[in-house]
This record gives sequence, structure tokens and C-alpha cells, in this order.
Amino acid sequence: MSKMFLKTLREVPSDADSINASYLIRAGFVEKQMAGVYALLPLGLRVYKKIEQIIREEMNAVDGQELLMNVFQPKELWDETGRWAKYPDVMYQFKDIRGKELGLGWTHEEQIVDIVRKKVKSYKDLPQVLYQFQTKFRNEARAKSGLLRGREFIMKDMYSFHADNEDFDKYYDRVKKAYQNVFSRIGLDTKYVQASGGAFSMASDEFQTISPVGEDKIFYCDKCDFAQNSEIATVKAGDKCPKCEGTIKLDNSIEVGNIFPLGDKYSKPMNATFVDADGKEKTLIMGCYGIGMTRAIATLVEIYYDATKNKMSWPKSVAPFDIQIISLQKDDESGKLYDILRQKYDVIIDDREMTAGAKFAEADLLGVPTRIIVSEKSLAAGGYEVVTQNGEKKILTEEEVSNI
Amino acid sequence: MSKMFLKTLREVPSDADSINASYLIRAGFVEKQMAGVYALLPLGLRVYKKIEQIIREEMNAVDGQELLMNVFQPKELWDETGRWAKYPDVMYQFKDIRGKELGLGWTHEEQIVDIVRKKVKSYKDLPQVLYQFQTKFRNEARAKSGLLRGREFIMKDMYSFHADNEDFDKYYDRVKKAYQNVFSRIGLDTKYVQASGGAFSMASDEFQTISPVGEDKIFYCDKCDFAQNSEIATVKAGDKCPKCEGTIKLDNSIEVGNIFPLGDKYSKPMNATFVDADGKEKTLIMGCYGIGMTRAIATLVEIYYDATKNKMSWPKSVAPFDIQIISLQKDDESGKLYDILRQKYDVIIDDREMTAGAKFAEADLLGVPTRIIVSEKSLAAGGYEVVTQNGEKKILTEEEVSNI
Repeated sequence: MSKMFLKTLREVPSDADSINASYLIRAGFVEKQMAGVYALLPLGLRVYKKIEQIIREEMNAVDGQELLMNVFQPKELWDETGRWAKYPDVMYQFKDIRGKELGLGWTHEEQIVDIVRKKVKSYKDLPQVLYQFQTKFRNEARAKSGLLRGREFIMKDMYSFHADNEDFDKYYDRVKKAYQNVFSRIGLDTKYVQASGGAFSMASDEFQTISPVGEDKIFYCDKCDFAQNSEIATVKAGDKCPKCEGTIKLDNSIEVGNIFPLGDKYSKPMNATFVDADGKEKTLIMGCYGIGMTRAIATLVEIYYDATKNKMSWPKSVAPFDIQIISLQKDDESGKLYDILRQKYDVIIDDREMTAGAKFAEADLLGVPTRIIVSEKSLAAGGYEVVTQNGEKKILTEEEVSNI
Repeated sequence: MSKMFLKTLREVPSDADSINASYLIRAGFVEKQMAGVYALLPLGLRVYKKIEQIIREEMNAVDGQELLMNVFQPKELWDETGRWAKYPDVMYQFKDIRGKELGLGWTHEEQIVDIVRKKVKSYKDLPQVLYQFQTKFRNEARAKSGLLRGREFIMKDMYSFHADNEDFDKYYDRVKKAYQNVFSRIGLDTKYVQASGGAFSMASDEFQTISPVGEDKIFYCDKCDFAQNSEIATVKAGDKCPKCEGTIKLDNSIEVGNIFPLGDKYSKPMNATFVDADGKEKTLIMGCYGIGMTRAIATLVEIYYDATKNKMSWPKSVAPFDIQIISLQKDDESGKLYDILRQKYDVIIDDREMTAGAKFAEADLLGVPTRIIVSEKSLAAGGYEVVTQNGEKKILTEEEVSNI
């Protein structure tokens, strides 16, 4: 910590518009560049990379192939679907030095369909699933809620292409399970909210995390997995659940992911076809699947940060470090312990000259899952004090700690 | 290969403006979105990620801390250095929905100085070294040379901050060695071209790879490491080398990386100061260090692609796969071999129903370092034919291949 680019702020930043931005700026995870635009500092990038790798594993497991499309989007391509003219308030649009009209990508259906229609010619080339992690841009009139809704943000967006609805249906269900794996692994309790009854209605199915700062409202059962977006709800708060004996509740929630059956919405106007086994030319059937990466970080903060105690508890899978060593002794053996533990874990050691109180306060703010305290008291008791996130404390010998 | 998103083109793309773009599009590594803007398809992203990881390791080894800054740059920040007004032809500049003036980042001195001046207050916080891999944008009037000079491209940019010139000098030399490691590891023979005599003249020191498509011209010795950019050269072709008995040559070259002593060029106008050990307020001393990521891929193609033979030879360290299995038999054991080798290597298997000739032609185009051929002939000879990039062939048993 004496060398890391890390400086926490004593005060809550005056221009933070949310708990997540306030925490992330104060604890040194992000820096605000302008309203709705945040840089990921080394701590924030560590959390991001852990989430990214979990999602990569789950998307690869459902046959996703990673690629990286472009920020720059030519007007002509978006004219094919009519979305250039339809979304001038969402898409940043401008002219380059040659007078050519360009937009900044806020979603990538047009580009992926363009790429796929050039490559996929036959039913033998199907299905295809492609995804990316990419910075996207939305011309928001009013940025708000910190990293929950930014003008510049990172998304994982995946697109699947199928020969028919049957193949799409099977695949859609696999992605649904992959998404449940993702949110479970990163520590976000989500409700699967079917925004509509049928798979081909072009409405999204959403993964929602209950939080007072969420912009959505959902009705859900307190006992089973029933949940509905309030906009299309057939139940109200206090109703008996249509699926079980539970009671319906109403709460705000954050949409952390969504999956869309797209049918031929984009492939038809863009003429993305293939030759089927029967020799006939058919239009590709599509789905798309999004997760807001920077939004996921913000949601984790809203859930796991206790503002009254200034205490963060990152889930183990996405914490910036696994272990934080707090050295309260000068010239102790904690440096050696650090080197041993680094072989197996992401470890940070607080080797700065500060009071124990200041170190503990910063450790609370940093939110690393396991804390190892090296103090006169712990050494007298025979070793190191290991403190877990649930507050459990025990004294372990050097050998025990090395095999933690 | 039967499942991968991969389709090679028989013909050289008509709109390719260079050997690198022509190869990368044809072999399915990239797709052209518009002039100067290329998407990285799964094959291209594999090469990119391998280069990225090598650079990450080398930057971490010189105490670099990875972060991710923003594409969006507010005008006010760039007004502090005068670069908003100075580079309207390089920087994409436009207004958002609120009328706020924004630019797209093409380099990040302003933002990194802004971040560092908020965090670094004392000499005890120094030195600091921060780097990122990020998509950048240049408003090029005429995009050319494929991925060598794009409008949208990926850079690794690193920035270092020091208390004094002495500390900077030592660090600059460490980065120079790290850069030599990077280019050696990714397979690019580079010449270190000192663009000036002294470290504080604000000129860049360049890493140049000799290639006829390069936009730079350098004079260099055919025997020692002497090299000069032609723009400031003190020698001419045919001269005796000032350092050894060699002879000076003149050739085009591609600038694949550069390192800049910045002194207080940005920190002074932006008032980025710290309190030194003597209690005095001083201005931070800076350096910056760039590598063009997409340019590096393009340079590798210019060097390792033989257009007359349609044959690519990716260096092992950055190849999209380590091993390509070519199965010429139906129902052979190559699927089992694939599963065994996957445990240790990035392996691709050509399991498609195509002629042997077509498979070999595509394998030549793909350029994977090691090829394992499973054929009637190889099986009769006792196993699998292993072919390395230098053309060496040998028959190995299944056990030998598994421990390749």
C-alpha cells in the first residue's frame, strides 16, 4: 500500500450523485472525469477484471466466441434498420474531418449482423454466438446514479444467430442459466423477470437486483421465483402469488442484465440470410444478451457497502484482493508472510506508517474479504490474527496462515 | 474449425489498402467497418490478447499499475495545456445533447495528470507509474496502410511521475529495457532510435521495425546498434558508422513504440505539484511510453506474411493457436488427440469435410506454428506427422505427440 496508487478521501466527494459513486471515488476505485464518465483506477480495474473473467468463462461455456467490434458506427449501416434517424437523442452523432457522418456505438446489432451476413452462408455455418466487452456511449441528457447510468460505460454484449426458432429457444434457455451462474458467482442475488409471456414478442427478459436506488419496479413473490416488471404486471402488492402460497411484494430494482429474443427484427431489414438444408434462402433468427459491467460494479457497492459504518464487504470472487495483511509492528515478519501468500493469492499489505486506527478504518473501506493482523498482541498469542468478513477471528501460526 | 466463426476469402479484398489489411481480412482475423476502422474477429482478438498479456507482464515488472481512463475528454481539461485549440484536426471534437464540448481521447496526458494531481501530494507518494490498454481515435483525413494507421485503434499508454530528473532518468532506462523485452518476446526485431541527444529535449526515442511499408526513414548501421531518424540524422547512407566499422544503411521503418521524456511539459501548465522532502512545492517530472497494439499486429503481418505463397508464420508467442491438427481421415482418433492437447495448449482442429489441399492452403493462411497431420500415410508410418514452422517434419507416436 505504500507503493500502490491509492489514496482514500476522508470526506464524501461533494459532486457524487449516489452511494456507489461516493464510495468508489472515496475508496480510490474510480475517478470522475465528468458527469457520467468515470475512469477505473487500479483498484476498480481489479474488480472489473474479476467480473469480466467470470463472465468470459460462462459465455465460453455456452459456445460464445469473443471478438471486439468498433466504437465508430457509419450512418449508412444504421440507416438499414432505421435506427440512425430514430435515436439521435441516444446516439452521439457527428461528422468527421471529411464530412462523413459517424455515431458512437451504444449497442451493436447493426455491426454484428453486418459481420455475420458476410460470413454465414449456409445452415452448416449455424449456430454462431459472438460476444464482446466494450466501452459504449449514450447521449444521456442527465447522467445520474453514479456508475449505474453513465454516458460512457462498459457492456458485455452477446449475439446469437440461429437457423430456426427451435434452435434459438434451446439456446436462449442455456444463456438464461449461464446468466444465473454469472450473477450467483459475482455475488448478486437476481430475480429473473419475464417481461412478457412469449419468447418472440421482442420484449426483454431481465435479471433484476432488489435495491432502493433501482430505477425499475418489480412485483415478486416472497417465497418462490415469481417476478414481474411493474410495467406489465398482472399482480399487485399484497396479492397471493399465482404460483405458490407466498405474498406479492413491490420493490425498486436494478436491471443488471437482460436477454432479448430478436427474431428477424434486425436480420430481415439487413437481409442477413442463409441457405437452409432444403435449399431455400431463409432469414437468420437472433437473440442478444447484455450485462452492464460498470453497472454491475455499482450494484455490488449498493448491496455490499454499509455507509453508516463506512464498511465495504466485497464478495470473495470479485474483491480487489483476497487477503489484506495489516502490519502494526515495525520490522516484523509480515513482509515474509506477504511473499509467501502472494504465490497463491492476490494479497495487499498495509506497510505504511500510520496509526492502527487509521489502518483499520481504511481496511473497512477497502473491503478485502480476509484480513491478517500482525501485532504485538497476536505475536504474543502465538501468531497472526485472521479476521474473516463475518467477523470471525482466530489466531493462526505462520505455518497455518501459509496454508490458509 | 467446423464450429468456429471463421471463413477465409479466396480473393484478396478489393478495398484493402495494404498487405496487412488484405491478409487480416482474408484470413478472418479482422473485419473492416469503414476506412481506418477494423473489428477484431475471434482470431484477431486471440493474437491481440497474447500481445496484451506480454506487455502487461513487462509493464508490471517495471512497477506499472494498470488502470482504464476514458474516451470522453472534456474541453476544459485540454484547455489547460492548450491542446484543445491546437489539435482540432487530430481530435474528434463535438457537442453533446446539453451543448457541452467533448473530444475523443487520442492520447491521455491531460487526464492522467488530472488524476495524479488529485492523489499525489508528497514526495513519499512518488514515483508512480500508470498504464492502460485503450481504444483511441484520430481524425485522420486519409486512413491508410490498413491497421498501421487507423482512425480507431488500440494503444498501450503508460505515464510515469517522478520527484526529480535523476529518478526519471533511472526509470526511463528501465522502461527502455522493458520495451526491448516486449518486442523481442512478440517477435518484432526493433531498432532503438534516439531521436535526440539528451533526455530532456522533449523528442521521442523510438522503437523501429524495418519494413518497406513503414512511413519513417531511418539510418542505421549494418553491424552495431547505431540508428538515427532521418529527420535529424547526422549521417547518410554509405557513411562509415560513427560507432563501429560498419556501414550506414537507409530504410523505411514502422514506429512500433516510443518513449518520451516529458519533463514538466504537462505538469507545469496543469499545476501538478508535490511537497518535496525539503518542504518545498515542486512540479512533477513525467515520462510517457506508448505501444500501438493494433499497429503491432499489422507490423507482425507485414514481417511474417509471405504474400507470394499465401503463407503466414505467426511467432509462437502471439499465434492465435499453438497447434493445428489437420484430420484427413474420417472417424480417426484426432478428436481424442485434440482433447489431450487442449489441456496444455491452444489447439484448433480442422475437422471439416474438405479436400486435403484446401485444408493445407487454409492452414498456410492461418499460420499456426505447429501442425499435426493425421492421415492414412502418417498412421501407416506409426502415428502423426508433426510439421514445424521451419518445415521440419517427423512422425511421432500418440504418446510422443501428447508430450510435445
